[in-house]
Amino acid sequence: MLHLKSETDERWLRQVDESLELILIDHAHCEKKAAGTALNLIFAYVENQNLCREMTEIVNEELEHFHMVVELLEKRGTPLRRLKPSAYGRKLNDLVRKQEPQRAVDRLLVAGLIEARSCERFQALAKRVREPELAEFYQSLFESEARHHTTYTRLAKDFAPDAEVMARLDELAGIEAQILAEGESAPRMHS
Amino acid sequence: MLHLKSETDERWLRQVDESLELILIDHAHCEKKAAGTALNLIFAYVENQNLCREMTEIVNEELEHFHMVVELLEKRGTPLRRLKPSAYGRKLNDLVRKQEPQRAVDRLLVAGLIEARSCERFQALAKRVREPELAEFYQSLFESEARHHTTYTRLAKDFAPDAEVMARLDELAGIEAQILAEGESAPRMHS
Repeated sequence: MLHLKSETDERWLRQVDESLELILIDHAHCEKKAAGTALNLIFAYVENQNLCREMTEIVNEELEHFHMVVELLEKRGTPLRRLKPSAYGRKLNDLVRKQEPQRAVDRLLVAGLIEARSCERFQALAKRVREPELAEFYQSLFESEARHHTTYTRLAKDFAPDAEVMARLDELAGIEAQILAEGESAPRMHS
Repeated sequence: MLHLKSETDERWLRQVDESLELILIDHAHCEKKAAGTALNLIFAYVENQNLCREMTEIVNEELEHFHMVVELLEKRGTPLRRLKPSAYGRKLNDLVRKQEPQRAVDRLLVAGLIEARSCERFQALAKRVREPELAEFYQSLFESEARHHTTYTRLAKDFAPDAEVMARLDELAGIEAQILAEGESAPRMHS
């Protein structure tokens, strides 16, 4: 259902064990960026009413999640601070083709893949973290991220035939798995 | 309460009489841009939790208004399309000082002035338009735009002493009135 080509590995889970607070701070920034991505898609495809409606819901939900993570950080006595993001998002966004309608397809599929990976990592985090409250929190985010992935993939099909979209998703998912397999030393949601 | 230095004049109201559909299309774009402005302020001042919370509410409300205008356009058989924006927003944003914390003060006050002017124009529109449903719609938006103006002005006071903020607001409001007095020939919400 998530169309991912790999499972989160032990290397990342060790980063979680060692640097949970950093992963949480980065998580807050990711939620904020996810809201920005959805709003940018409204700006880019404002004539597509269906897209605008779905993106509005995603903006609202991501901002809600952002505040949930910020509150969680506050309870832990970890103030939100700026962090150099991982290269993951940039590397994926570099794959977006320049010409429309391929550009729309790729922007939606990349946004959807990031949601899928976040979803998969929330499941991994829910199993890994020792604090029951935190495990429950990650579990609660799982469903909405999976739904966002489905929404993005469905919207991409407004811009190209189904088979073409699914072939491109397969291709992008392959590269996404490679990017994560390379790994990054700074602990982040997508390192 | 709105801190404006002028009232909307007959010149603009004649543009409304002659080009209501253009004003409505531009209105939809303005609501979308207002959501973008609020989200950008979250990105810029992410450590300020109070600001982030207030901006989240504004993002949600502006997107809701955006959809209300889009639906209204749909009912009128006027599809939403791209429009060259008026120079109003750019001219005001050009006044934002580059150094923090003055930059934050100015970004918030400029956003607040645009809300104040929209508010004042919605009142003028409610009185001017002949269709009762449309007049009611403009009336319904009045309250939230006034509240947004108050929110932005209050948040600016997180970044500078009250007296300094109010002096700058007075100054910016003077320039805002001049910009509108010059006028623009293409009919827009802020022409």
